[in-house]
Amino acid sequence: MAEFEAKEQRVVVAVDESEESMYALSWCLRNLISPDTQTTLILLYAKPPPPLYSSLDGTHDFFSGDVIAAMEKYSRDLADSVMKRAESIYKDYTNIKVERKVGSGDAREVICMTVKKLGADMLVMGSHGYGFLKRTVLGSVSDYCAQHVKCPVLIVKRPKN
Amino acid sequence: MAEFEAKEQRVVVAVDESEESMYALSWCLRNLISPDTQTTLILLYAKPPPPLYSSLDGTHDFFSGDVIAAMEKYSRDLADSVMKRAESIYKDYTNIKVERKVGSGDAREVICMTVKKLGADMLVMGSHGYGFLKRTVLGSVSDYCAQHVKCPVLIVKRPKN
Repeated sequence: MAEFEAKEQRVVVAVDESEESMYALSWCLRNLISPDTQTTLILLYAKPPPPLYSSLDGTHDFFSGDVIAAMEKYSRDLADSVMKRAESIYKDYTNIKVERKVGSGDAREVICMTVKKLGADMLVMGSHGYGFLKRTVLGSVSDYCAQHVKCPVLIVKRPKN
Repeated sequence: MAEFEAKEQRVVVAVDESEESMYALSWCLRNLISPDTQTTLILLYAKPPPPLYSSLDGTHDFFSGDVIAAMEKYSRDLADSVMKRAESIYKDYTNIKVERKVGSGDAREVICMTVKKLGADMLVMGSHGYGFLKRTVLGSVSDYCAQHVKCPVLIVKRPKN
């Protein structure tokens, strides 16, 4: 009988504020991570890039230092909140090693670059199911990643009910 | 500790003439199918729809019965050949139940309809990596299926080397 490969697996799970990404994490833990495998889950959150502002001319500096600091704090708080929600889902799976990574920039680029850099064995993501127009103009993040990363990509859709 | 769900899983693997789909099947057997799960793999091949021909007017009936029979035989032979290649990959995995299904029609529709009808737990497919133009015009089969089926979709890309 052929052997199931019980080697170490590095699985990147892209998480964000959406219910879809939390469902994807939960599905992955329930269905993919066998007790026979040594799995490291890498939770990856991409926070939006820092806000653009002009400081060329003092008179146009309408995003003051305070506002920028507040926006940056909000962004960090959001990342913490996403990671805490994720923790409430994975904390009972004691045989799994979990790492957290927070990148900054466009989610597509952050995800594809991180998967490449880590040499991940699999990428797991939720499917946001954007409407027709947005998907036509921008394409979905999951489609983009499925086309651009080299490892297998699992796209998990959250049931409607 | 939370339990890995060792329930019966129905995994549809879309197979065709491509190396990509055979690699996807092989990757799935090596990495996804744990000995703890009861897995039924459903190998699904979509053969092209029957050729269109006109029999409204005898004079335009340029696809004779012989030609049509030959085309249909070729199509059946191709399906057999794909299933035999798949068998050479899964035959050593003795703990897995395998079913074969051959549908007829556009691959996107055949795959999405079969997944829905069977209530599959997961769909596994290769990524063909069509060139930019073809993907822009038609979209890839895997993108289409990832958007249209409700179960998780795993897209496996074959390494270049």
